[in-house]
Amino acid sequence: MDVISVIRTKRDRGRLSDEQIDWVVDAYTRGAVADEQMSSLAMAILLNGMDRAEIARWTAAMIDSGERMDFSSLSRPTADKHSTGGVGDKITLPLAPLVAACGAAVPQLSGRGLGHTGGTLDKLESVPGWRASLSNEEMLAVLDDAGAVICAAGDGLAPADKKLYALRDVTGTVESIPLIASSIMSKKIAEGTGSLVLDVKVGSGAFMKSLEDARELAATMVGLGTDHGVRTVALLTDMSVPLGLTAGNALEVRESVEVLAGGGPADVVDLTLALAREMLAAAGLPDADPAKALADGSAMDVWRRMIRAQGGDPDAVLPTARERQVIVAPATGVLTALDAYKVGVAAWRLGAGRARKEDSVQAGAGVEWHARPGQRVQEGAPLLTLHTDTPEKFPYATEALEGAFTVDPAAAAFDPAPIVLDRIA
Amino acid sequence: MDVISVIRTKRDRGRLSDEQIDWVVDAYTRGAVADEQMSSLAMAILLNGMDRAEIARWTAAMIDSGERMDFSSLSRPTADKHSTGGVGDKITLPLAPLVAACGAAVPQLSGRGLGHTGGTLDKLESVPGWRASLSNEEMLAVLDDAGAVICAAGDGLAPADKKLYALRDVTGTVESIPLIASSIMSKKIAEGTGSLVLDVKVGSGAFMKSLEDARELAATMVGLGTDHGVRTVALLTDMSVPLGLTAGNALEVRESVEVLAGGGPADVVDLTLALAREMLAAAGLPDADPAKALADGSAMDVWRRMIRAQGGDPDAVLPTARERQVIVAPATGVLTALDAYKVGVAAWRLGAGRARKEDSVQAGAGVEWHARPGQRVQEGAPLLTLHTDTPEKFPYATEALEGAFTVDPAAAAFDPAPIVLDRIA
Repeated sequence: MDVISVIRTKRDRGRLSDEQIDWVVDAYTRGAVADEQMSSLAMAILLNGMDRAEIARWTAAMIDSGERMDFSSLSRPTADKHSTGGVGDKITLPLAPLVAACGAAVPQLSGRGLGHTGGTLDKLESVPGWRASLSNEEMLAVLDDAGAVICAAGDGLAPADKKLYALRDVTGTVESIPLIASSIMSKKIAEGTGSLVLDVKVGSGAFMKSLEDARELAATMVGLGTDHGVRTVALLTDMSVPLGLTAGNALEVRESVEVLAGGGPADVVDLTLALAREMLAAAGLPDADPAKALADGSAMDVWRRMIRAQGGDPDAVLPTARERQVIVAPATGVLTALDAYKVGVAAWRLGAGRARKEDSVQAGAGVEWHARPGQRVQEGAPLLTLHTDTPEKFPYATEALEGAFTVDPAAAAFDPAPIVLDRIA
Repeated sequence: MDVISVIRTKRDRGRLSDEQIDWVVDAYTRGAVADEQMSSLAMAILLNGMDRAEIARWTAAMIDSGERMDFSSLSRPTADKHSTGGVGDKITLPLAPLVAACGAAVPQLSGRGLGHTGGTLDKLESVPGWRASLSNEEMLAVLDDAGAVICAAGDGLAPADKKLYALRDVTGTVESIPLIASSIMSKKIAEGTGSLVLDVKVGSGAFMKSLEDARELAATMVGLGTDHGVRTVALLTDMSVPLGLTAGNALEVRESVEVLAGGGPADVVDLTLALAREMLAAAGLPDADPAKALADGSAMDVWRRMIRAQGGDPDAVLPTARERQVIVAPATGVLTALDAYKVGVAAWRLGAGRARKEDSVQAGAGVEWHARPGQRVQEGAPLLTLHTDTPEKFPYATEALEGAFTVDPAAAAFDPAPIVLDRIA
């Protein structure tokens, strides 16, 4: 077996054999296939595709590159959720404790933000004292105690994916449905969850810009999960508008705590409940009532236990940015559009996200918007507030926000569009 | 400017701008763009192509990555030749001294073999004492003294191409017409020749398997040369059958000396003369008579001077391989086919070529064939002789030769097919 013949097969629009896939994934993990060889193969895969059997084998090879976790010792059924990433997507924060409060165990291995989409770990690290890195034993202990744990994936889980993900990020080979699907599912299957709900984002703020691409990605991932014995469901959800009213680390934690306290923006509450119901059904708990667990404070109790178990103080004051700048509504009328991508780039430039893996993020930085599409706004009233510790970034953020919103003096107020666009099982 | 946006442009089937090309070629040469980034871009270029203006700019950027040589101090017009590489292609060896004997200066910067095609420098290094590496001053001195020089290109010439060529070789991105054309032409234009004849090979033993691809490559290169003020002509020549009667280093030197002595296989003589006439016409010497220079020994005189000027002994006995194995004709009849690619692979496996840049080659190894297609052979008489210092390689070479030739007892002898298939100027 040699790497050039594997690359040529895909370059010339052929099918990779099981042997070729097993060999190249293993050889890349061991360092016998070099980065520059894997990146040309990744580009050939991006441009020429892989069929369902190739994707399944590629995913299996990435799972086999590392350890598999086992939650069978837990007394509760396990349920996990994965979002493909969006702007203002803080859903994991209220969702994990909510589902745990309803009886499932939620082992939520999460990542950091890169580019314009935020990362769950970055958000939680704005809680003073909270720690993302746990040993496997610590993770099981938190899960056993609180019912939910949100932490970084260990190095032993799908190391092939870890290496390939970092490579794709710097070689323009991210946007490939076979590579995205196998990356997500190899980690989730190796993690050993019994059921999985996928939140596949569609729209300007998501990787998948079209419903068609999102459907293909969702169907690919549901197929991979099902084939590996994981009960898997996908919701396609709207990401043309950012979620809730904030994008940023501490800003989103604050909003999540509002949801756990029974308040919060309606779209965040709706999506949290929709995903919770899917997770509970997939975990074999269809009669659980997540709305009640929000209302009666039991989800908040799990949140507090979970934060405390990882060194965090749930009562601490969250950090705020040193500087703010307000953008006012240019007219009186109805806010008809608010672009998720542009808001995400603005939050990123203000310091909420990172350009490179090594960069740190600002806990307090981000963007708040004071209305959602469909709502009326008054000329001169605050429409957006920008937060940062580095005010020299304000001009770059306002530049990113050019054309991000539309206020129409002639439009009538309207109800928000539904957030769940489709369901694939 | 950032490399991901350049990669994305080509990945998404866009045109690279002049600024993108200048930046990425320069940044890659400096090391600011990493190998894994350039290899994914190379794969995107291979699969999505470049238009004529992009190829021209890419070539210009590679020329600008290094120094340009200048032969204007010479009293004679300069003429150079480049072959895209084939099996048994020793033509440079008799051609350079022949054209010099007719009045042109021939600065022949050459390469080493990789894979199944041989390299001119490897062949000449089988002449005891001969040295491939010359300083620019030494090169000019040999050119001035002998009229021709065959040597390795210096490190200062198109360093971007040197780096990219090595990268493409290990990343499955060799077979791209834009990348092949810009690689060849950047070196030839930087070298500063006034005229250039391209020998574009077509057939099983060549990179270009079809006449259509070969025509496209030839037209692309002729356009690039002409745009840079180099009088450029291309001959498309047959490489479905190997050239002459030998493939290997010392074996081909011996055959080349036979041609310079007025003998040698007819196809080698024909192609040498056809290319010599094109080079002399392009150099402004249309009345020169290369056939006479072969017959009267003046081409041989230049050869001897040239070899001696680079430390070689033209009278030394050439090395021979320690072991031989004969393959006999399986029937009495006419040899109807002899496959260039399979013969090339056999010679390579016997030790005439290298798998990696670092490997050394055997001077004496290679394949001799004792008939050319169209000729009659006798059952049991030698058809091929294999030469090697490593007889454990015989089985691999004979495996490569399976189906390489056909002896048809019922066929009538026939004249060889013409070697020059087309001319593009």
